[in-house]
Amino acid sequence: MPKQVDHRGRRETIARALWRVAEQRGVAHLTMRVVAQEAGISLGQLQHYFASRAAMLSFAVEFASEQTARRVEQGLERLGDRPHPRDVLRLTLTEMLPLHAGARATSRMTAAYLLEALHDEAVHEQARRGLLHGRALIERLVRHAVADGHIDPDRDPVTETDLLLALTGLTPLIELDVIKPPDALTVIDLHLDRLFARKDQGA
Amino acid sequence: MPKQVDHRGRRETIARALWRVAEQRGVAHLTMRVVAQEAGISLGQLQHYFASRAAMLSFAVEFASEQTARRVEQGLERLGDRPHPRDVLRLTLTEMLPLHAGARATSRMTAAYLLEALHDEAVHEQARRGLLHGRALIERLVRHAVADGHIDPDRDPVTETDLLLALTGLTPLIELDVIKPPDALTVIDLHLDRLFARKDQGA
Repeated sequence: MPKQVDHRGRRETIARALWRVAEQRGVAHLTMRVVAQEAGISLGQLQHYFASRAAMLSFAVEFASEQTARRVEQGLERLGDRPHPRDVLRLTLTEMLPLHAGARATSRMTAAYLLEALHDEAVHEQARRGLLHGRALIERLVRHAVADGHIDPDRDPVTETDLLLALTGLTPLIELDVIKPPDALTVIDLHLDRLFARKDQGA
Repeated sequence: MPKQVDHRGRRETIARALWRVAEQRGVAHLTMRVVAQEAGISLGQLQHYFASRAAMLSFAVEFASEQTARRVEQGLERLGDRPHPRDVLRLTLTEMLPLHAGARATSRMTAAYLLEALHDEAVHEQARRGLLHGRALIERLVRHAVADGHIDPDRDPVTETDLLLALTGLTPLIELDVIKPPDALTVIDLHLDRLFARKDQGA
């Protein structure tokens, strides 16, 4: 195996250890020393892969986004060749919510990072780029759905995109057991039904 | 002034100092020592009012909820004697978002607390009770609006309530300058327009 691959693999292992610390003990515990311990390596070895806590966090959150995108892609493959845009949006939204163990890890990592972004300019910039990227993807889906006649042409794609992104606000309700995962899906389906309701086909 | 009032006043001053630390430096800095320093009192004085960090945090977040409820009440007074339920819901939702300095302080305090709830059972219980309480208030508003004919009777009040609460998911978009406060209001108005659209009056 080429050395480059090992390096990447080791960084991903460290990122997953960091997620576990963030998920189980909270962001206050995300020091290089604690993450090294969780990953089962020495602090020196960790520092070989990440020069600073900021670099380590930055990689861990990028990796969380990648893993979320990957789960969405895998879901898309199951949807077949020409998936309905409603199904694509539903899949994207549900993978952003802590509805199963993998999504919970990335969701908590993201929440911790967003909070850190309020007090750290570099994190703010990275988190902002991440949000803008995700928002652009959803906006493109909405625009295509409008162009293909699935969504009424009088809907404003930008406002609809922000309303879709807002649904990640179900996260605390799920995390604190106020609602169960099926309730979250009911809420998302209700919203998508309204978004995709064509006036010419009745309300 | 009775001694009880002084005590409450001093606790509120400490809570506001805690909010400032949480807002400006992040939840990782919320130690008794740092909060005492921010409040301009000694650690001993702080410990006279709060026996532990947990007790101090618990009070600060209760106080944040109370202040949010108070801003909503003040807004309701401006809406006059019999406000439209759409205006009441709009006011409630907007005061939960970081759209102005006061709401930003309570919103950040709440976000930090929700994250802490994932790793602390006592915090989990308090945060859960708070969410259930807020949800019950909104559900009651929705049920009244249905009973009074403002919202279609075939809407499910519980699902609509969770969808309204989900709109707090606009918070990261606002905090990271992805959208501006007026954009957030556009999103909320779009959603409320749909919720209050009566089928018999056209879509």
